[in-house]
Amino acid sequence: MHAYRSHTCGALRIQDAGSDVRLSGWVHRKRDHGGLLFIDLRDHYGLTQLVLHPETPGFEAVERLRAESVIRVDGQVVARDASVVNPNLPTGEIELKVVAVEVLSEAAELPLPVFGEPEYPEEIRLKHRYLDLRRETLHKNIVLRSKVISSIRRRMVDQGFLEYQTPILTASSPEGARDFLVPSRLHPGKFYALPQAPQQFKQLLMVSGFDRYFQIAPCFRDEDLRADRSLEFYQLDVEMSFVTQEDVFAAIEPVMHGVFEEFADGKRVDPYPFVRIPYREAIAKYGSDKPDLRNPIEMQDVSEHFRDGGFGLFNKILAADAMNAVWGIPAPKGGSRAFCDRMNSWAQGEGQPGLGYIFWSEDNNAWGGPIAKNLGEATDGMMKALGMGQGDAAFFVAGDPAVFHKFAGSARTKLGQDLNLISDDEFRFCWIVDFPMFEWSEEEKKVDFSHNPFSMPQGEMEALTTKDPLDILAYQYDIVCNGYELCSGAIRNHKADIMLKAFEIAGYDGSVVEEQFGGMLNAFRYGAPPHGGLAPGIDRIVMLLANQVAIREVIAFPLNQQGQDLLMSAPAEVQDRQYKELHIRSAAPLK
Amino acid sequence: MHAYRSHTCGALRIQDAGSDVRLSGWVHRKRDHGGLLFIDLRDHYGLTQLVLHPETPGFEAVERLRAESVIRVDGQVVARDASVVNPNLPTGEIELKVVAVEVLSEAAELPLPVFGEPEYPEEIRLKHRYLDLRRETLHKNIVLRSKVISSIRRRMVDQGFLEYQTPILTASSPEGARDFLVPSRLHPGKFYALPQAPQQFKQLLMVSGFDRYFQIAPCFRDEDLRADRSLEFYQLDVEMSFVTQEDVFAAIEPVMHGVFEEFADGKRVDPYPFVRIPYREAIAKYGSDKPDLRNPIEMQDVSEHFRDGGFGLFNKILAADAMNAVWGIPAPKGGSRAFCDRMNSWAQGEGQPGLGYIFWSEDNNAWGGPIAKNLGEATDGMMKALGMGQGDAAFFVAGDPAVFHKFAGSARTKLGQDLNLISDDEFRFCWIVDFPMFEWSEEEKKVDFSHNPFSMPQGEMEALTTKDPLDILAYQYDIVCNGYELCSGAIRNHKADIMLKAFEIAGYDGSVVEEQFGGMLNAFRYGAPPHGGLAPGIDRIVMLLANQVAIREVIAFPLNQQGQDLLMSAPAEVQDRQYKELHIRSAAPLK
Repeated sequence: MHAYRSHTCGALRIQDAGSDVRLSGWVHRKRDHGGLLFIDLRDHYGLTQLVLHPETPGFEAVERLRAESVIRVDGQVVARDASVVNPNLPTGEIELKVVAVEVLSEAAELPLPVFGEPEYPEEIRLKHRYLDLRRETLHKNIVLRSKVISSIRRRMVDQGFLEYQTPILTASSPEGARDFLVPSRLHPGKFYALPQAPQQFKQLLMVSGFDRYFQIAPCFRDEDLRADRSLEFYQLDVEMSFVTQEDVFAAIEPVMHGVFEEFADGKRVDPYPFVRIPYREAIAKYGSDKPDLRNPIEMQDVSEHFRDGGFGLFNKILAADAMNAVWGIPAPKGGSRAFCDRMNSWAQGEGQPGLGYIFWSEDNNAWGGPIAKNLGEATDGMMKALGMGQGDAAFFVAGDPAVFHKFAGSARTKLGQDLNLISDDEFRFCWIVDFPMFEWSEEEKKVDFSHNPFSMPQGEMEALTTKDPLDILAYQYDIVCNGYELCSGAIRNHKADIMLKAFEIAGYDGSVVEEQFGGMLNAFRYGAPPHGGLAPGIDRIVMLLANQVAIREVIAFPLNQQGQDLLMSAPAEVQDRQYKELHIRSAAPLK
Repeated sequence: MHAYRSHTCGALRIQDAGSDVRLSGWVHRKRDHGGLLFIDLRDHYGLTQLVLHPETPGFEAVERLRAESVIRVDGQVVARDASVVNPNLPTGEIELKVVAVEVLSEAAELPLPVFGEPEYPEEIRLKHRYLDLRRETLHKNIVLRSKVISSIRRRMVDQGFLEYQTPILTASSPEGARDFLVPSRLHPGKFYALPQAPQQFKQLLMVSGFDRYFQIAPCFRDEDLRADRSLEFYQLDVEMSFVTQEDVFAAIEPVMHGVFEEFADGKRVDPYPFVRIPYREAIAKYGSDKPDLRNPIEMQDVSEHFRDGGFGLFNKILAADAMNAVWGIPAPKGGSRAFCDRMNSWAQGEGQPGLGYIFWSEDNNAWGGPIAKNLGEATDGMMKALGMGQGDAAFFVAGDPAVFHKFAGSARTKLGQDLNLISDDEFRFCWIVDFPMFEWSEEEKKVDFSHNPFSMPQGEMEALTTKDPLDILAYQYDIVCNGYELCSGAIRNHKADIMLKAFEIAGYDGSVVEEQFGGMLNAFRYGAPPHGGLAPGIDRIVMLLANQVAIREVIAFPLNQQGQDLLMSAPAEVQDRQYKELHIRSAAPLK
């Protein structure tokens, strides 16, 4: 027989009754029952119940063992009495009558219990991650992550994509977030950078003639941490040659849909093609370019119902500036003064002066609230336009939409949550398309890129030379799922002259562009194919599928919120020799 | 029709004759032929021949285009005349009669030609890697790499392994090679390190209850570069719980065999199980723990034939020290004075005093050479023991085998090459097993670990407490293919007390071990399964399969020999702001 096991702890069934088997695993739970010792033996694959009689050799040793010790047992599979069959356990119809035991590893007193998964402070969980990872929920999350990534890979390969690795020790990228740097030993005073994303390399792969690239790529950003963001993360990096935006969508939609279907655990997944929502429409309807479509509320511009009407405040706002508007946010079943007042208080808590509303409660026979009073007869037409009637309400935000749309979006989300409009059991997808190429930077008082400077402007060179930069759209797109931005992508600018022109509009001198992006710009000068791609975030996909809100719950060995690995003690001090080799000195404050 | 292509450049066949199609690709080669313009249009998938008549719209524009420009063409598929069918090209039975052309990207004068792949200096190839990568050989290598990795992944998953990612920003490891360091912004004076291998994490995954782990893992070593080594490389990292050495072998042999079979391009691949050779036997037979088994030469200890015999020099050497020995290296078909003299000169070039030999040339009737003369009658028996007869020779090395075995191994290799004994069309595999756990460090005058300090000593604690350390073997093993070490692995030491004892023997105080490996040592104290694994080098596997001797030929964007990325300009200087953020100062010499 094998030194450690003939079966795993999840394998035995009623058909095995009578067999002599060997199992190895962790002592998950131990119960003393009328002189008998019952042990749930656990491994990666499942649990098997062991029974030890007092006369079983090794009984005393096992009786003394702490939970999480590792043992090997030999024994006979026996059918459980019908009364103690456990239908929730795949091995629940049998148990193992133990005849021999070997202790493979004795556990000391546990800093963190495994059985029952009681809540424990994150610091302890991370310091003893090898115990935390044995807990059922986290163990399942990490297995899910592995399976999701494996499924994504299979789907990409099946579609004719090939995975290519791009460098991790690479050049510092002047745009975007903060780089992690790696001092060079061989080149004093110089540094490698870890990639924020393989953006330039994947484009270079296209210029190199590889047609359909993907990579489950590690990316690094030295940014402050949040629950859904870590210093080191993975993305499904994708790039394709000779494609339009629709080709990219058609390639990635079945992958995203398929992997969500596969692991959604019964939740409904939007069929593809996913709905395409232009950026400006998303802002107008949802107040956000990351709309949660599970929330059915769509906002409307109701300015015309208020203009020159009876409600003086909105009148004044609309008259003050042609850009100003009033947006209405429908609140189905929100028709009570108490609810509307709560929303108003919430808005004040968010730093707003308040939140105007109109409501029609179930036990009343007309629209109520101060706005309705002032607006008079126009009220009913507007509320009908918003799709609201008795029992409903609507809220109103007025001013410059560029300023208030974010808050309006939050109000929409809040209404969706408080009115229970957001279904828990579906994954709703959309593409946000037609992002503006440029935006006005209030800070720098100049036109700047809205998103990725490497995107192709719609209309190409002609648009750049003839249109108001702020009116130019880009072939740039996001996938949004349940309010999370899962990925960004674009059809790239593959023409050096258009790229230089786009940077010129954003105020960058040609020499600066040549210096900072010379590698790529030069590549475009020797025959570059039209190309585009995107990069869905793996950690977020797994987070959604695992029904978690913290990215650390889907990473085996995450850093904590302060960027520390509490298990392996990183970051850590290094030796003087290492400073010397790397040609650097510490400038840390003295302790 | 699609904006860029209805087919790829490798897709059209004789059955498509008559169809109207659209292709996009690179101008691979252009020929003018009786007023007609012939263009080989290339993309990732293949080549298609285009024909343009002078009256074709766009003819002049295309005529002026440089090679490697990117164009889109519309045209009609026509069958080629039988006389110009190209049987070497999948599309060789057709050509495209072009009716419309669009130039998508015009190429400037090329710094590096693509067509014909003429040899070019590596610096130019790396600086313009996007052109280099379009060349057929390198393009194929990179595609091969992708397919090899994908095949390995599939084979691992099919065997029930799951891929888990381990951290890249992690702790500095005090053993092994030099770490790359990453200064921490949030923790002044502290550094992350990039992993030399996920050794500790994969063991922690086992302690965490994940049973069968693999990862195509990026690894980093700040070492001086060689042709077959780069700063950043990938390994198939594997670890398994509740296994013996034979289980690890049984899991990995079908993967290695399978992937070599799949991509060996007709070369013979050793069936598995691969032969197991104990370390000491490998040294004695091949003078190396990385024997190339394509070379049939096996060395023998022939001391007994020389002891107290007629050849005074070897007599003296054997008498001087009981450790000393004489090894014979058979040289089938090496039986000529000229050949033996050449070998002798080669040995002198290697810094040896010379290389003794005995030969029997085809046109002679007895063993010749000075040794045979002195040894007399004993010669024939010894040569027969070495399997040599007329037309053959043997070479002899004498002294302390611990000192000379390396040279003897080189002589064996040299003989195999010069006598054409090494077949070019097979992949020969073996396991080297039973590595010594410890070795004597002449430098430090102490016992030290031979290889991995985390391996389990054979005999466990009992061996450590009762045996001479230099006699203790470890459950440690390598896979060797055609003389290349493809991987190292071991059954790990999963018991904290045995680990502390092993480190004590190697002269490390318990407190040092706790400080440097505390994370793992602690993990072992809370229930650790017996486990083991290995880590075949991906780049080397691909290098062998691609029939290359330099690792840079199988990496899309490699660093050069000086660790520089000439395309993206890395490493590079960074801004003062970045030094400040990372709490470091430059200690680079002033220029």
